[in-house]
Amino acid sequence: MGRQPIPLNNYSMTIIYTLDLIGTFVFAISGMLAAANKQFDVFGASVIAFVTAVGGGTLRDVLIGAQPVGWMKDLNYLGVIALAVPVSYFFRAYIQKLRKTMFLFDTIGIGLFTILGLQKTLDMGLHYVVAVMMGAVSAVFGGVIRDLLSNEIPLIFRKEIYATACILGGIIYLSLTVLGVEYHISVISTVVFIIVIRILAVRKHWSLPMIK
Amino acid sequence: MGRQPIPLNNYSMTIIYTLDLIGTFVFAISGMLAAANKQFDVFGASVIAFVTAVGGGTLRDVLIGAQPVGWMKDLNYLGVIALAVPVSYFFRAYIQKLRKTMFLFDTIGIGLFTILGLQKTLDMGLHYVVAVMMGAVSAVFGGVIRDLLSNEIPLIFRKEIYATACILGGIIYLSLTVLGVEYHISVISTVVFIIVIRILAVRKHWSLPMIK
Amino acid sequence: MGRQPIPLNNYSMTIIYTLDLIGTFVFAISGMLAAANKQFDVFGASVIAFVTAVGGGTLRDVLIGAQPVGWMKDLNYLGVIALAVPVSYFFRAYIQKLRKTMFLFDTIGIGLFTILGLQKTLDMGLHYVVAVMMGAVSAVFGGVIRDLLSNEIPLIFRKEIYATACILGGIIYLSLTVLGVEYHISVISTVVFIIVIRILAVRKHWSLPMIK
Repeated sequence: MGRQPIPLNNYSMTIIYTLDLIGTFVFAISGMLAAANKQFDVFGASVIAFVTAVGGGTLRDVLIGAQPVGWMKDLNYLGVIALAVPVSYFFRAYIQKLRKTMFLFDTIGIGLFTILGLQKTLDMGLHYVVAVMMGAVSAVFGGVIRDLLSNEIPLIFRKEIYATACILGGIIYLSLTVLGVEYHISVISTVVFIIVIRILAVRKHWSLPMIK
Repeated sequence: MGRQPIPLNNYSMTIIYTLDLIGTFVFAISGMLAAANKQFDVFGASVIAFVTAVGGGTLRDVLIGAQPVGWMKDLNYLGVIALAVPVSYFFRAYIQKLRKTMFLFDTIGIGLFTILGLQKTLDMGLHYVVAVMMGAVSAVFGGVIRDLLSNEIPLIFRKEIYATACILGGIIYLSLTVLGVEYHISVISTVVFIIVIRILAVRKHWSLPMIK
Repeated sequence: MGRQPIPLNNYSMTIIYTLDLIGTFVFAISGMLAAANKQFDVFGASVIAFVTAVGGGTLRDVLIGAQPVGWMKDLNYLGVIALAVPVSYFFRAYIQKLRKTMFLFDTIGIGLFTILGLQKTLDMGLHYVVAVMMGAVSAVFGGVIRDLLSNEIPLIFRKEIYATACILGGIIYLSLTVLGVEYHISVISTVVFIIVIRILAVRKHWSLPMIK
């Protein structure tokens, strides 16, 4: 797709993989916390944590035809979700205090999910535009499926701007890649961009115009 | 499946393809209009427009295993949806006046989606019965997914008769095809049948019996 | 996955297949009865019956990449669902009296769906843990999709314990299989275990702890 796959050194790979797992962990915890406001039992809450964490990537894999879906091939993702369930159950009070740290890793997760989903779609030989869409789907549709299963209108359709941040981030990542910018710089720039947009959106109460 | 693929001349192909794109466009606009009654922002409304337009075909492709799903391989479908979003945003008042034209193209779209979905399923080597089901899924499940994402009970489960029209239309198309009727005549007969049934259903307030 | 496929004699195969079809039939009837409490027409209720009966297996097949999904390849499943629709429509009063028989076949169905789903996942070369999950998904997600389409929070996330029974049953089946226990004994033990757990859960009002 316009650039050769750059062999990453082990150190970079490990960092990206670790951050991806941490992102999954944080997504799962946020799913558990969301479930706590509904009258779910432990099983239901675990399902919600699970779909919040991997639902976006699962939908992407099904749409592009990359099955069995990703988390079936690397059990570490299931592992961190299985860890998130008791952690959020027993340390809820403590987690609430870590809100800023959570927000940071959640946003890093969003950025990485976007890039990894976009790249996987490109690797299937699909078009840039589809890849940007699938990057955003990877990052935000876990939350959409969580809201559907909780019988709520997806939050993201109403006031969160972060889907837009993912789309813009995807376009930036793709542009940098096409321009031949080094992989690490592209990844870091994109993730930082998404973090900055999201923080600004929260601080400045940015939102998209409503329909009607 | 009982008949040889008939080489279509370019003229016919272009007409069917154009009507399919127009149908997609009209479906997307109707999705946008539906979203306007919910408190969606531009992003949410665009997602609703998108799933209304291509959700049925996407579900069909995932079920029969024809991935990557159709709209990923021909960006014109994304193109007309991307066009429908600003058009329905800025020309809403004008569109309301075109209600009859919209209804006509919407129904042509339903008829074509049924036939194209049915044919694609047959082309995968699946059974006639499955093909008729997948024809109807192609035509009506975009609306079902739209309703799910809007947190409403799918309208079609309650009072629209057009799923039934699609199933009957699919059976007619299949019968004509098996009987060796020329392709264009089969397509036009089926689409006209679905249009007539739907108009009659609206005029005469036809509905299926309720359960209970 | 650790054991050779055991050639089953025709008699065993026929029994398992017949019970699987009966399970599908009973699931479809329970879907119809659930739809009767909503204002669905015959079409909507049939869709609900259909997804209740085969929705779990369909989701499993899509996730593991075993498409076209199972019911497309053996029309007997569609057949028993098509039978269940008029049966539950015209014999509702009679079915209500058969509640205990229905419950028994429903639970046998759950047990078999778990085992068959688990085995199909193993046959795709996937991990034991994924297989246990997909066994439970096969058994319980038809009901989840039914609840989603009916715009309700999935019942199973709140107070049914039978997803847990399916997971435990799957672990038992897998353990027996790995230990080299004969296939029929493994199947019967697992199904009996799931039945006993479910009856006890109903009798003793077992439930999982709520989240908050």
